[in-house]
Amino acid sequence: MTLEEARLAVAVASGRSPGSLLLRNAQLLNVFTGTIEPTHILVAGRFIAAVGESVADADAAEVIDLGGAHLAPGLIDGHLHIESSLVTPDTYAAAILPRGVTGVVWDPHEIGNVAGVPGIRWVLEQSEGLPLDVWLTVPSCVPSTPLETTGATLGLAEIESLLAHPRVVGVAEIMSFPAVIEGDSENLGKALLAEAYRKSPEGHAPSLSGRDLQTYLATGIASDHESTTLAEGLEKLQSGVFLMVREGSVTRNLEALLPLVEPRHGDRIGFVTDDRLPHDLLDEGGVDFLVRRAIHGGVDPVYAVRCASFNVARHYRLPRRGAIAPGYLADLVVLDDLDTFRAATVYKAGKRVAEGGRLEATPARGPADPAAVTGTVTLPPLTEASFRIGAVGREVRCIRALPDQVLTEELRVEPTVRDGAVVADPERDLLKLACIERHGKTGNVGLGLVTGFGLRAGALAGTVGHDHHNLLAVGVSDRDLLVACRRLEELGGGVVAVADGEVLAELALPLAGLVTAEPLPAVRAKLDALEAAATSLGNRLPSPYMTLSFLGLAVIPELRLTDRGLVDVRRGELVPLATGP
Amino acid sequence: MTLEEARLAVAVASGRSPGSLLLRNAQLLNVFTGTIEPTHILVAGRFIAAVGESVADADAAEVIDLGGAHLAPGLIDGHLHIESSLVTPDTYAAAILPRGVTGVVWDPHEIGNVAGVPGIRWVLEQSEGLPLDVWLTVPSCVPSTPLETTGATLGLAEIESLLAHPRVVGVAEIMSFPAVIEGDSENLGKALLAEAYRKSPEGHAPSLSGRDLQTYLATGIASDHESTTLAEGLEKLQSGVFLMVREGSVTRNLEALLPLVEPRHGDRIGFVTDDRLPHDLLDEGGVDFLVRRAIHGGVDPVYAVRCASFNVARHYRLPRRGAIAPGYLADLVVLDDLDTFRAATVYKAGKRVAEGGRLEATPARGPADPAAVTGTVTLPPLTEASFRIGAVGREVRCIRALPDQVLTEELRVEPTVRDGAVVADPERDLLKLACIERHGKTGNVGLGLVTGFGLRAGALAGTVGHDHHNLLAVGVSDRDLLVACRRLEELGGGVVAVADGEVLAELALPLAGLVTAEPLPAVRAKLDALEAAATSLGNRLPSPYMTLSFLGLAVIPELRLTDRGLVDVRRGELVPLATGP
Repeated sequence: MTLEEARLAVAVASGRSPGSLLLRNAQLLNVFTGTIEPTHILVAGRFIAAVGESVADADAAEVIDLGGAHLAPGLIDGHLHIESSLVTPDTYAAAILPRGVTGVVWDPHEIGNVAGVPGIRWVLEQSEGLPLDVWLTVPSCVPSTPLETTGATLGLAEIESLLAHPRVVGVAEIMSFPAVIEGDSENLGKALLAEAYRKSPEGHAPSLSGRDLQTYLATGIASDHESTTLAEGLEKLQSGVFLMVREGSVTRNLEALLPLVEPRHGDRIGFVTDDRLPHDLLDEGGVDFLVRRAIHGGVDPVYAVRCASFNVARHYRLPRRGAIAPGYLADLVVLDDLDTFRAATVYKAGKRVAEGGRLEATPARGPADPAAVTGTVTLPPLTEASFRIGAVGREVRCIRALPDQVLTEELRVEPTVRDGAVVADPERDLLKLACIERHGKTGNVGLGLVTGFGLRAGALAGTVGHDHHNLLAVGVSDRDLLVACRRLEELGGGVVAVADGEVLAELALPLAGLVTAEPLPAVRAKLDALEAAATSLGNRLPSPYMTLSFLGLAVIPELRLTDRGLVDVRRGELVPLATGP
Repeated sequence: MTLEEARLAVAVASGRSPGSLLLRNAQLLNVFTGTIEPTHILVAGRFIAAVGESVADADAAEVIDLGGAHLAPGLIDGHLHIESSLVTPDTYAAAILPRGVTGVVWDPHEIGNVAGVPGIRWVLEQSEGLPLDVWLTVPSCVPSTPLETTGATLGLAEIESLLAHPRVVGVAEIMSFPAVIEGDSENLGKALLAEAYRKSPEGHAPSLSGRDLQTYLATGIASDHESTTLAEGLEKLQSGVFLMVREGSVTRNLEALLPLVEPRHGDRIGFVTDDRLPHDLLDEGGVDFLVRRAIHGGVDPVYAVRCASFNVARHYRLPRRGAIAPGYLADLVVLDDLDTFRAATVYKAGKRVAEGGRLEATPARGPADPAAVTGTVTLPPLTEASFRIGAVGREVRCIRALPDQVLTEELRVEPTVRDGAVVADPERDLLKLACIERHGKTGNVGLGLVTGFGLRAGALAGTVGHDHHNLLAVGVSDRDLLVACRRLEELGGGVVAVADGEVLAELALPLAGLVTAEPLPAVRAKLDALEAAATSLGNRLPSPYMTLSFLGLAVIPELRLTDRGLVDVRRGELVPLATGP
């Protein structure tokens, strides 16, 4: 709030000047008292000037009678990766604003892995001035492991260089909990840096409990969004964790944790989406989906809203956000109906931005894409021979991809060998998997085998490959793998399906190889075409490209493939394809 | 937390290193869940390393079995003026630590009025390294009005010069609510300064409601501790105010607000003492008194504790304070009994500081007193004639002092005139009142009449005179008034009772003319002697020196006396003694 705005707010509240907007006869969801109050709201520019019976007849440029409609503060998503929706922040904003979401806390972990500090500065630029508040947490684990090549490294100095930014509100989920528990100085240092800037050190502690959990929290790490069971959630809550209840596309925990979402837990619970794939974003929405589901699940509606607004704002100390009261930003959601939690009208900072589910105006894109996030796919010189796996003995490791799971399993199989090389064998659902370093650094090509996809021919490939985002390709023929990689290089990143040397379907993701400036419906259509192409090739997995994108994730068990080769996650080391000598 | 401390905490929590302290078999008051849990607490140096069954048998240098005693986090007083207790912060700490109070948020408003920024820097120095956390809010209203002479002025630049200090957590109670409501840039600027530093703009909005309250809050002012009725408290709570429930010596609001002190209000309520006179501090305690009273009044004990710990810590974002959980500071209170809320043992930052109501060691005093707060009583040259009031007509204004109230009334009386001058008339309980500028600036002497004390002879005087802290003296004879003033100048400030040219009793307050380095029992004994002396002179008021100290307070109705003369508070202007021409 500037001094001019403060003077205006005070003049309007006191009646010396007319307001910009008066919303009469609202049923206000009061997050402070947990009650619903019939009242009136007077707005002065970006801010709420006054609430109450005393402004029922206040003077304002626009007066709207809400006729008893419910009014909620704009929702705030406590933790997400916009990259998961494959779009730029303006597109994300366009999708989410009409649903009543007026703020998000974004951990640009994927862009950080590809493009480092310049990439995150681009994120800050691109999200400046949107009608959606975009707060950032600085990715803390880039790279996630030393067993992979990333486009950038974010050490203590790089993280600190971003922490003073007013929209940076924390250090993002510190995922390397084993290193934290071991007392690794670099990881502890990241948590302490956040504290030194009076910002929040965010956590990521899947399945941690007992002494391990206590040890992780002894550092001061403040939150967690990885609880999957009631017992886990309760233990974290008792231990002082700001419990983020997550309902993403990949992982859905709301139902399990619902009994904890209770007014008696006050400010200790927040709602987050973490990851929302384009389909889910369009069909279900963002953090509004959690509010809706929580209400359906019997949670007090005011408290459900509070978990996705005030509680998140308090956790990160987001200024003047998360409630409807004098001095707060006028982020307001008029609801058609409290049970369905559908937004009829959405105001951001006092301006109507959406009505009946439609935006008033398309959010402006940020400045042109700088070098930081374009041209990020630089492959080594590739030929069909790049995909050749020399014969290596009688037993090899094979990754088993599981339907709709991030976990994988390690199998031991007898390889199919032809002409002295291990080959894909569709009859046995043994496919070739490649992870190709794409940041123009090492030119590494990691090769292995995977089962579970069921492809009979062709190849699927993409430059979204958690967390290093090297190119991951699965396929039957080396030729199609090569074609897929070349096409991705031409596109500057994306996802492709190839067969018989031809591209069947594709989605270009030219920004960091992760996101596109295209609108969501176009993205969805292309993803549908990609799924259809995969199906035509014999795919049996529900989400083959997503599953593929996780096959390189060297922090979740059991067996993974990075550009440096196969990783045994439990042992935390590279292992050869062959199990024998 | 330093990196070394983080490494230690993690090593202890995980069991690789022994802890410094293990408290076994505690009944822990868990402020996060509102429950009481049987558990064990493992401490590593200053911090709690781990809590839970998993550390029941952890290795530690000291192991104490609490045998099921209740364990609460150290209490934190959300707003007070230590000056009201007439002692230095180390003395205050010594009084309050054995009661389980381990932190306070101090608005050094009185010292600020006398000694400005250097005085507040002295406060910061004096409170550094104590076994009590002393957080500061920067006084926002120095001077309180333009109708008085203070020792210093704290403008925007002066306030800003203090805001970056890590123990400064806000801008203190913005008392000039009429100026805020009128949109005065200086006052709005003070609130915005706090926000710019991500610190808290604190409020003071007695009796404000409806549109006035909304206007005041439109600035972003975050708290209030002036509610005296349930309706007032509820309206403020609904309007987003962090509701500080106050139980001071001068003003007591807990009982009226008790119905609001409910777990459903979660983090929205804090406990504060504001002002505690030495007697009350010794007999009742500090913010522990509110917890005790709230529990007696039926408030859930865990929630009562939360209002005086976690909620205050959250409001100001005090790091790692206000709860018992891994990563938090080991500020722990073992209770004899939950109902009486008596502290058996108190730990501050992992060290035992008190046992059975007794300190383990006297807190060290800060560095020697600098010029900023010594020699602060510089009076103009005074003679008996300085107290002469020339005859001014047939009717004059007279202040009526009321028992145990800060409010005064304005009376109109016929003056008693002798030798062409208005004189005190003990028969009619008309006493002479003087307010003498003592900061060595203007040398102003304000003169008037007061009724209510009932003195038959002598004079009472003190250099505690809210908020400007000029010398206030009430008396029968000009000679005794003069003797009292001269003695106060010799003492460098304090409180005296004089009769027949002799000092009957006195308390020296040589630091800023407001506080003493003497211990509280000595202060209490001298105050008792002063009260006895006043009684011997005929005083009828229950707290004559306190009442006297408020007679110069030009912001609370009705009639006051400053060094510039009589102030009609409602009109906000100086008025002459005589009502007629």
